[in-house]
Amino acid sequence: MNVPEKMKAAVLTSPNTFEIQKVNTPNPGPTDVLIGVETCAVCSSDVSLIAKPWVGQPPYGEFIPGHEYAGRVIEVGETIDEFKVGDRVAVEAHLGCLRCINCRRGNYTACLNYGNTKKGHRANGFTTNGGYAQYVVNHVNTVHRIPDSLSFDEASLLTNLGCVLYGFETIGGYIVGDHVVVVGPGPLGLISVQVAKALGAGRVYLIGTRESRLKVGGDIGADLVINANEEDPLKAIHDETGGIGADVVVESSGGSGALQMAIQMTKRMGKVLLLGVPHEPVLLDLENLLQENKSIHTVRGEGWANCARAVSLWSSGKVNLKSLVTHSFPLDEISEAFETFTERIGGAIKVVVNPSRD
Amino acid sequence: MNVPEKMKAAVLTSPNTFEIQKVNTPNPGPTDVLIGVETCAVCSSDVSLIAKPWVGQPPYGEFIPGHEYAGRVIEVGETIDEFKVGDRVAVEAHLGCLRCINCRRGNYTACLNYGNTKKGHRANGFTTNGGYAQYVVNHVNTVHRIPDSLSFDEASLLTNLGCVLYGFETIGGYIVGDHVVVVGPGPLGLISVQVAKALGAGRVYLIGTRESRLKVGGDIGADLVINANEEDPLKAIHDETGGIGADVVVESSGGSGALQMAIQMTKRMGKVLLLGVPHEPVLLDLENLLQENKSIHTVRGEGWANCARAVSLWSSGKVNLKSLVTHSFPLDEISEAFETFTERIGGAIKVVVNPSRD
Amino acid sequence: MNVPEKMKAAVLTSPNTFEIQKVNTPNPGPTDVLIGVETCAVCSSDVSLIAKPWVGQPPYGEFIPGHEYAGRVIEVGETIDEFKVGDRVAVEAHLGCLRCINCRRGNYTACLNYGNTKKGHRANGFTTNGGYAQYVVNHVNTVHRIPDSLSFDEASLLTNLGCVLYGFETIGGYIVGDHVVVVGPGPLGLISVQVAKALGAGRVYLIGTRESRLKVGGDIGADLVINANEEDPLKAIHDETGGIGADVVVESSGGSGALQMAIQMTKRMGKVLLLGVPHEPVLLDLENLLQENKSIHTVRGEGWANCARAVSLWSSGKVNLKSLVTHSFPLDEISEAFETFTERIGGAIKVVVNPSRD
Amino acid sequence: MNVPEKMKAAVLTSPNTFEIQKVNTPNPGPTDVLIGVETCAVCSSDVSLIAKPWVGQPPYGEFIPGHEYAGRVIEVGETIDEFKVGDRVAVEAHLGCLRCINCRRGNYTACLNYGNTKKGHRANGFTTNGGYAQYVVNHVNTVHRIPDSLSFDEASLLTNLGCVLYGFETIGGYIVGDHVVVVGPGPLGLISVQVAKALGAGRVYLIGTRESRLKVGGDIGADLVINANEEDPLKAIHDETGGIGADVVVESSGGSGALQMAIQMTKRMGKVLLLGVPHEPVLLDLENLLQENKSIHTVRGEGWANCARAVSLWSSGKVNLKSLVTHSFPLDEISEAFETFTERIGGAIKVVVNPSRD
Repeated sequence: MNVPEKMKAAVLTSPNTFEIQKVNTPNPGPTDVLIGVETCAVCSSDVSLIAKPWVGQPPYGEFIPGHEYAGRVIEVGETIDEFKVGDRVAVEAHLGCLRCINCRRGNYTACLNYGNTKKGHRANGFTTNGGYAQYVVNHVNTVHRIPDSLSFDEASLLTNLGCVLYGFETIGGYIVGDHVVVVGPGPLGLISVQVAKALGAGRVYLIGTRESRLKVGGDIGADLVINANEEDPLKAIHDETGGIGADVVVESSGGSGALQMAIQMTKRMGKVLLLGVPHEPVLLDLENLLQENKSIHTVRGEGWANCARAVSLWSSGKVNLKSLVTHSFPLDEISEAFETFTERIGGAIKVVVNPSRD
Repeated sequence: MNVPEKMKAAVLTSPNTFEIQKVNTPNPGPTDVLIGVETCAVCSSDVSLIAKPWVGQPPYGEFIPGHEYAGRVIEVGETIDEFKVGDRVAVEAHLGCLRCINCRRGNYTACLNYGNTKKGHRANGFTTNGGYAQYVVNHVNTVHRIPDSLSFDEASLLTNLGCVLYGFETIGGYIVGDHVVVVGPGPLGLISVQVAKALGAGRVYLIGTRESRLKVGGDIGADLVINANEEDPLKAIHDETGGIGADVVVESSGGSGALQMAIQMTKRMGKVLLLGVPHEPVLLDLENLLQENKSIHTVRGEGWANCARAVSLWSSGKVNLKSLVTHSFPLDEISEAFETFTERIGGAIKVVVNPSRD
Repeated sequence: MNVPEKMKAAVLTSPNTFEIQKVNTPNPGPTDVLIGVETCAVCSSDVSLIAKPWVGQPPYGEFIPGHEYAGRVIEVGETIDEFKVGDRVAVEAHLGCLRCINCRRGNYTACLNYGNTKKGHRANGFTTNGGYAQYVVNHVNTVHRIPDSLSFDEASLLTNLGCVLYGFETIGGYIVGDHVVVVGPGPLGLISVQVAKALGAGRVYLIGTRESRLKVGGDIGADLVINANEEDPLKAIHDETGGIGADVVVESSGGSGALQMAIQMTKRMGKVLLLGVPHEPVLLDLENLLQENKSIHTVRGEGWANCARAVSLWSSGKVNLKSLVTHSFPLDEISEAFETFTERIGGAIKVVVNPSRD
Repeated sequence: MNVPEKMKAAVLTSPNTFEIQKVNTPNPGPTDVLIGVETCAVCSSDVSLIAKPWVGQPPYGEFIPGHEYAGRVIEVGETIDEFKVGDRVAVEAHLGCLRCINCRRGNYTACLNYGNTKKGHRANGFTTNGGYAQYVVNHVNTVHRIPDSLSFDEASLLTNLGCVLYGFETIGGYIVGDHVVVVGPGPLGLISVQVAKALGAGRVYLIGTRESRLKVGGDIGADLVINANEEDPLKAIHDETGGIGADVVVESSGGSGALQMAIQMTKRMGKVLLLGVPHEPVLLDLENLLQENKSIHTVRGEGWANCARAVSLWSSGKVNLKSLVTHSFPLDEISEAFETFTERIGGAIKVVVNPSRD
């Protein structure tokens, strides 16, 4: 395929400032794939890292963010037979160094050489260039073929779905018949509702305050939505579970009191899966956690190859995230895309950028 | 409720011989429930134990077999508030002693005091009286309320569904996107197909020889059925999985060469779940098992409270075992029921007896 | 054996007030053992519950606390063949109801019928009478035979050792070569040091402020003790682990900043085992927990039959808790015992009461 | 360091025939380490693969076997800061491709690209050159620094110790207080005895027929050795465990009836760890396995980075394998070394070759 030497990319030039530039198109190494980006979705971590650089982030003027993307294979490295030119693909963000003790045990999203590119670590969109560009290079481990039935816009949410699956695998992965509460109807929360149902959860409850998102939650499969502005969620879960509490509570709101509430509404011996990061330190009463033998689990990224499982779930039709992609913009309008996402303009849930659109 | 002093029961009086007798209706103890049996299904272990008594089985003339049953709560013991008279319920077979080290760790179907009724162990239909009778007493741990949408005939298969779920939990419980092969389209095999799909398996393959049962397997959700009389199953799975093999192979046929085949078609690091018991010792080449880091798992009964999960799965409509119950008989015709089951008369899969029918 | 009708017991008559009374000696039921108490140790939960009653606690004037005890079998219930009169035994506190979903899955210390004696739950010293008495009745599940090599005073710490083992099993149980930090050299912390070494941990670090207890920690097996008054523990662990952090951090101090410190010094993907309860809500920055894929685990009591494992470890000589029992008192001086424990008079670590001593 | 262009190596030139040749010294790539081999131990898989090539093995005349070795770092690749020249090291054999789904999940000894060097897989001594030479190149993932207290001869057994640890981790890793039976006092069996003790097993039984090796087993820590020529091992274990059976049975003899015996002597719900490969298919009665809910686990190689744990265990003095290395030879006498090993001349257990000795 004819790859141009220069490509269009959104380069982060200073805090919260993207500049659309012509830069060199990257070349794939022996274990890499060159992807022509069709869609790159805006993630709340993008919002955070363009405001203030994260650990390992390249300097202003050199860095192209964006870690949630999908597109077409344009070129493959010399050892690659897993993909061929033209394949429709989506990606995950984290390539570990593959040599530290965490990577060796399969925990590559918790790589101990995070940001050390010399040793092989890459996290496209975090420590190496990402998808707000026409082309991007990915290590073979981070690329997944997607079915024709899946649009690039929806497929760009792969890391989201992979992350939620990784979360459920982290807490045991077997939740048939369990009561699952999801706090916070943001993208990860809404996906958690779908995944919980797909894994056979008994009853799935969604707690939030924004009526429009709660409605999406109901459409997407929640058995009961609870508007915390209208009723006490703790009492509601207590009543729904016969006073026992939920087997699993997924806290994805990042609200300051949400973790405390999540702990309280978890059953004895139950598990809290923490997906939302509070911006400030939170005040936490730990007595109930200890007295009732509960645990708090977190996940970084989309580990243990759960993106492969995610693609399978999508292919089977058991999850459908179309309704989450509410807005799309050309690459030139990336700033509008970010504003739409952060300000939730027009009921925005996930906002995507389409670098291939001109 | 008015409980008669005498009830009708099928008493095992000698090998393979049932006698319909009038016997004393049992009384529930403080932690028990008295159930009026609507349906009791014939299991292949029934066929085995009526031919030759199993360990811990009561003597001829005193024993009422039958461990797969459903019915209505007639009376409850003095500590029971989990159930009330009139509840529609189904049961599991194994009540552990609740005091041995296995029971204390939750492994009650592997109770170390199996058959020791003095110490509290009961396995209705194996070591204590079961469901081929109008009434039966069950410890509260072994009783599950069922939804109105579920017929007693279907609900009598609770232990089957619980056993398969226990099997999947035993091998990790998290199979999203995995390739699963099921060998043998008997009741447990067909249920395994449904459970694998309900847990999010990627592709489910069913291998058998009986065309009528393979058809049921396709209807019930298998992505591909393979008739071993027509093609080489090992080659078929090899081709379907790109030469890699299946993540999980459920062997439920009990065929003499089936375990060897199951091992060969399992992926490196994959798992074999053995649900079928070969009647004779089998010849096994273990080299591949070791070279490729595979494991063989078994389950006894329906452990780890998986019957509760089973009821949830049923309630959600994700499994539907109606088509497996092919024949039903009144209690008086229990011998015909067994014959229909063992001879597979009329394409019999599961055959049930209805003690309440007169 | 000749059991007197009346026995001496320390009855809790009002907040923080014990009265030594003559009360009826209890009778063992069919699944119980009557124990003649030789030693009952003071636990910090005793201090808490005599000040303000815990959930499910019997009323003042009727309740005999004490849950850490050892003694001799005096009488056995009619189904008991696990023990015989004269056996030297120690106990665990929690008997679940054995019928709720948690108990059925082996999680009896998280029984959903906690405090419901009608349904079978007992927690001697919490919801039913305990060991600050000459005699006490225990269900067979909660009794363990101890070797002659083990004194009653040391054996009274069984629940402590069982609890720590349960904690290590909860976080995976396999820590060969791992770096383990223990925060807080109280009884559970010091036992954690020994258990970590006994399970093959690579390096065990103990952090505290009280020089005398840190010295015990060194004697008992810690590879390095860190006095937080003299150096920055976070920096020390950072340096010792090459900047990576510890695989496991056991927080047993209950200090207000301790959990935050524990999280910070844990490796990516590492685990915090929380054994100490802060008295007040703590302020917690969760960002590092999420960014680095860490988890927080707690344990209630001495679950999963770990007391049986504890006795084995003691018998092998791999743990030795003699040095933790620093003071003993006759039952009549129980108030002095509590004062010695809470005020840490004479460097008290564990303080015991000997009801058999007169 | 001055590395000669040519080195001495034992090249496999035809079945069972080594030729000592001068060949090119290999060069380390960017992620590699060049090791000067001090000791390379003979393994029974060497005996098998020199007789008949294994899958992926290089052709006669080009292949240097040997996968159990230790030595000194001579040169490091450009990205290496984990090691420096002069470090004393030992190795593991398996480097996965690091890109297949098994490798990504940490299961690199079960790499799906086994033998595919283009994709990055290497297994020194199996599919790439090994340690029967003066120098060898290892990927950084497969190299471990060893303490000065450990001789090269003992350290060459690293994969053995790593394999046994991997086996114990595979069956859960937490065996405190458990009864463990080891069948077969070969190298892996004897190491299993030590590892079981180091992990806190309650009682460890060793079964064999060769008195001299059983004696080593007793010296190395077995609580009881059982000579199968003198007593019935099944009865012995039955009696020792009060009729319950062992929690874990490690079968490392490869004997034709050994797996059947191992199954029978395992407790209900217990686990068989199969380390020995029978040369011929074995006849197996599976009924007990199923009725009693047992499982059979195997391991390939020394996975999940257990070699790092192995080095820690060695450093702590908790295992000591010195007595297993019974014979050593210079490289020139490699054929004598193999003969000594296979014929067990002079009571040989492990036989090593020392390429640095002249």
